[in-house]
Amino acid sequence: MTGDGAFTVDASRVTFGRGCIAEVGDRARALGITRAALFSDSAVAQLEVFDAAQRSLRAAGIDVVDYIDVRVEPTDESFRSAAAFATEASPDGYISVGGGSVIDTAKAANLYATHPADFLEYVNAPVGAGAPVPGPLAPHIACPTTSGTGSEVTGIAIFDLLSMAAKTGIASPALRPTEALVDPDCTGTLPATVVACSGLDVLSHALESYTARPYTHRAAPARPTQRPMSQGANPWSDLGCGEALRLLGTYLARAVADASDSEAREQVMWAATLAGIAFGNAGVHLPHAMAYAVAGQVRDFRPVGYPDSEPLVPHGMSVILNAPAAFRLTAHTDPARHLFAAARLGADTADAAPEDAGTVLAEHLMTIMRQVGMPNGLAGVGYTDADAAALADGAWPQQRLLANAPIDVDKPLLANAFEQSMRYW
Amino acid sequence: MTGDGAFTVDASRVTFGRGCIAEVGDRARALGITRAALFSDSAVAQLEVFDAAQRSLRAAGIDVVDYIDVRVEPTDESFRSAAAFATEASPDGYISVGGGSVIDTAKAANLYATHPADFLEYVNAPVGAGAPVPGPLAPHIACPTTSGTGSEVTGIAIFDLLSMAAKTGIASPALRPTEALVDPDCTGTLPATVVACSGLDVLSHALESYTARPYTHRAAPARPTQRPMSQGANPWSDLGCGEALRLLGTYLARAVADASDSEAREQVMWAATLAGIAFGNAGVHLPHAMAYAVAGQVRDFRPVGYPDSEPLVPHGMSVILNAPAAFRLTAHTDPARHLFAAARLGADTADAAPEDAGTVLAEHLMTIMRQVGMPNGLAGVGYTDADAAALADGAWPQQRLLANAPIDVDKPLLANAFEQSMRYW
Ligand SMILES: NC(=O)c1ccc[n+]([C@@H]2O[C@H](COP(=O)([O-])OP(=O)(O)OC[C@H]3O[C@@H](n4cnc5c(N)ncnc54)[C@H](O)[C@@H]3O)[C@@H](O)[C@H]2O)c1
Ligand SMILES: NC(=O)c1ccc[n+]([C@@H]2O[C@H](COP(=O)([O-])OP(=O)(O)OC[C@H]3O[C@@H](n4cnc5c(N)ncnc54)[C@H](O)[C@@H]3O)[C@@H](O)[C@H]2O)c1
Repeated sequence: MTGDGAFTVDASRVTFGRGCIAEVGDRARALGITRAALFSDSAVAQLEVFDAAQRSLRAAGIDVVDYIDVRVEPTDESFRSAAAFATEASPDGYISVGGGSVIDTAKAANLYATHPADFLEYVNAPVGAGAPVPGPLAPHIACPTTSGTGSEVTGIAIFDLLSMAAKTGIASPALRPTEALVDPDCTGTLPATVVACSGLDVLSHALESYTARPYTHRAAPARPTQRPMSQGANPWSDLGCGEALRLLGTYLARAVADASDSEAREQVMWAATLAGIAFGNAGVHLPHAMAYAVAGQVRDFRPVGYPDSEPLVPHGMSVILNAPAAFRLTAHTDPARHLFAAARLGADTADAAPEDAGTVLAEHLMTIMRQVGMPNGLAGVGYTDADAAALADGAWPQQRLLANAPIDVDKPLLANAFEQSMRYW
Repeated sequence: MTGDGAFTVDASRVTFGRGCIAEVGDRARALGITRAALFSDSAVAQLEVFDAAQRSLRAAGIDVVDYIDVRVEPTDESFRSAAAFATEASPDGYISVGGGSVIDTAKAANLYATHPADFLEYVNAPVGAGAPVPGPLAPHIACPTTSGTGSEVTGIAIFDLLSMAAKTGIASPALRPTEALVDPDCTGTLPATVVACSGLDVLSHALESYTARPYTHRAAPARPTQRPMSQGANPWSDLGCGEALRLLGTYLARAVADASDSEAREQVMWAATLAGIAFGNAGVHLPHAMAYAVAGQVRDFRPVGYPDSEPLVPHGMSVILNAPAAFRLTAHTDPARHLFAAARLGADTADAAPEDAGTVLAEHLMTIMRQVGMPNGLAGVGYTDADAAALADGAWPQQRLLANAPIDVDKPLLANAFEQSMRYW
């Protein structure tokens, strides 16, 4: 075997529980923060959770400078503005209160303010230079308000590179927030579409990490400390994924249907945290790689529940629309895993044969997608078969993710996967 | 509710896989270590794993000073000798290669060399002053060679206080090793008794953490950053415990019976890591609190597979001998949890009523104990009913652990539990 012989798991400190946002001041002080940059977006900044964070920081004697101009679905431009703010404000710590858009923006601001560089320097190759982050960043406490991207526990920051009409990202262990404070109390104000989209992002984190190329099938790195974050499925990530899938199968539809079902919203938030820890140590693959193109090439889709200033396909939606087609293509590599995942999500797999694994999982995903109001495939957000080749071109630069798929991926396979994602029912 | 509203999980970086001991040099260098103190005991220092660590450190250009005088089942005296060595050698990093005895000794040496103090200063109250560790320690890479205590992922160091004939410990997040390198290849040389004892320690870590007083029933700390390590059962620890119990139910007996069954030995090692992460964030309770007295008051028991220079009850044995009696006493607090745990270990619980939970779990534990050659209760290691009161006195100072039990514990209850632990079959 030429693959890697070991896997490495890393996790930041996580606090989970109702009302725990009130711990942020004490925790910031314990990290030695005296002047905090508090990041949010303009909608979240109106919510009680943002006030609570501010009060807690002030009560701890910490000087707070707000930045509430985060763009939902950030771009290189919005990352740059945030970095300029941070450079100017020179805080000694970062607090992010918001969804993945806010947390990712705080990571980028922290990075460029701490280790200034040309913007493309740290961006993943081949889009950017993929240079390693030269040292640690300032402490960052991430407080997610969606359920959620898992960004609070990953070393990834994602944005839209406007000049290429493509999403890409920055990936480095240095970007992982120092601590996460996960307070399910703030999910009560989430619009149903946001619960659905971010919940399906979580679901796909868990499914992709669970079915990723096993770590033993990835070539060992030149030096063990250079093992990538996308190291493939491993026993640690398997455990978190299995539990996240079980929780989502039980609670996601309830959480979307009823904002007052606080049990369901809390459990989906916990699933997001578990799946975030898992995918941060295993990596995602096809559906996420495809999603970058789906989000980047959007024409005029404007979902309810999101800012309507510009067209956008919410991240979780752009992921899940590819998932049924993608898992049909990967199922043969490990039918038992695909069936196990379907069963954890609630599918009846008792009589399923190995060769049915792809169909069983894909159909169960479609059932969930319909339950929570997703569009019917990529056609539902404005794409046609004629777009498949351009979408494949858009996904192709995501080599880090494509290499983590359990199958070998080329452009024709991608184009075919996009065609199969156009219409599901 | 007056209990805590949140829980906090912390985990260090863990690398797991056959042969990963060879990564220690690269990892030490990445942590900035230039002069490493390499800790082991005289038996482990003869093994290939110790050589491999040494070679890897030297190949990375690191200066290595050996300390192979660790005492198996350490004492305050042996901790002090190790601290004196470290103070003298002044390394800038620690590598421990051995079982819990070695890893704990390296933690203590690092502590007293970095933050010198009177020995009892940091020792858990009421035995010691329980003073907080004033700051971070030097980096420490822990490489466990037993399967195992989980010490590689916990902030705990345990020793025998000779003057009191009682085990106690030091507990602080600062003691948690920076990284763990868990290489199942080194378990091939473990004597069957050591696999059995350390495996039953793991089993009890998982069972105790799973049945500990839930975190919501523990009073909230004055400041959230002071939440104790023994914070009680929580959704994070539950997940690791459930998987560890399943693995032990499947593989422990095989791992004990056959040193060449590398699959079983590897899976038990992985269970030890998972249970270590879980109990490091939840805490153990009655069986461990009782074990401190059982080990501390030993008269002349000398198990095969352990150094025979002095009488000793191996840690895992001293724990598991109390477990059936202890879980009979706690089962009524949450029969479903106790039955679930029994089922994960392989018991048939299909027809068990809630009121049978204690009996079902206790009897299944006895089956496992017999399979792996444990003595028949405390009588098997030399105790009689006449010792119950003294044992209760010996366990009573373990208030940190007793408070983590799901029942209120007083001395008569302890004495009764010891009596019930004397003879099982
Ligand atoms: N870094 C990572 O590891 C990672 C992983 C997955 C996704 N992402 C990125 O995260 C972004 C998506 O993040 P997201 O799904 O969390 O959503 P988001 O941050 O984009 O927010 C979505 C909408 O919900 C609103 N909102 C947020 N919290 C709210 C609350 N509690 N109540 C009411 N409204 C609220 C926001 O104002 C916004 O309008 C994408 O850019 C995606 O690429 C990052
Ligand atoms: N810090 C914690 O969180 C924690 C948790 C549980 C237990 N402990 C402590 O750990 C100690 C027990 O540790 P342990 O059970 O790992 O055993 P150990 O370190 O005491 O070692 C037991 C015996 O096995 C030998 N040995 C170790 N590895 C070997 C190998 N690969 N091949 C052959 N022989 C080998 C040792 O030389 C020794 O004779 C106790 O002091 C206990 O209190 C600490």
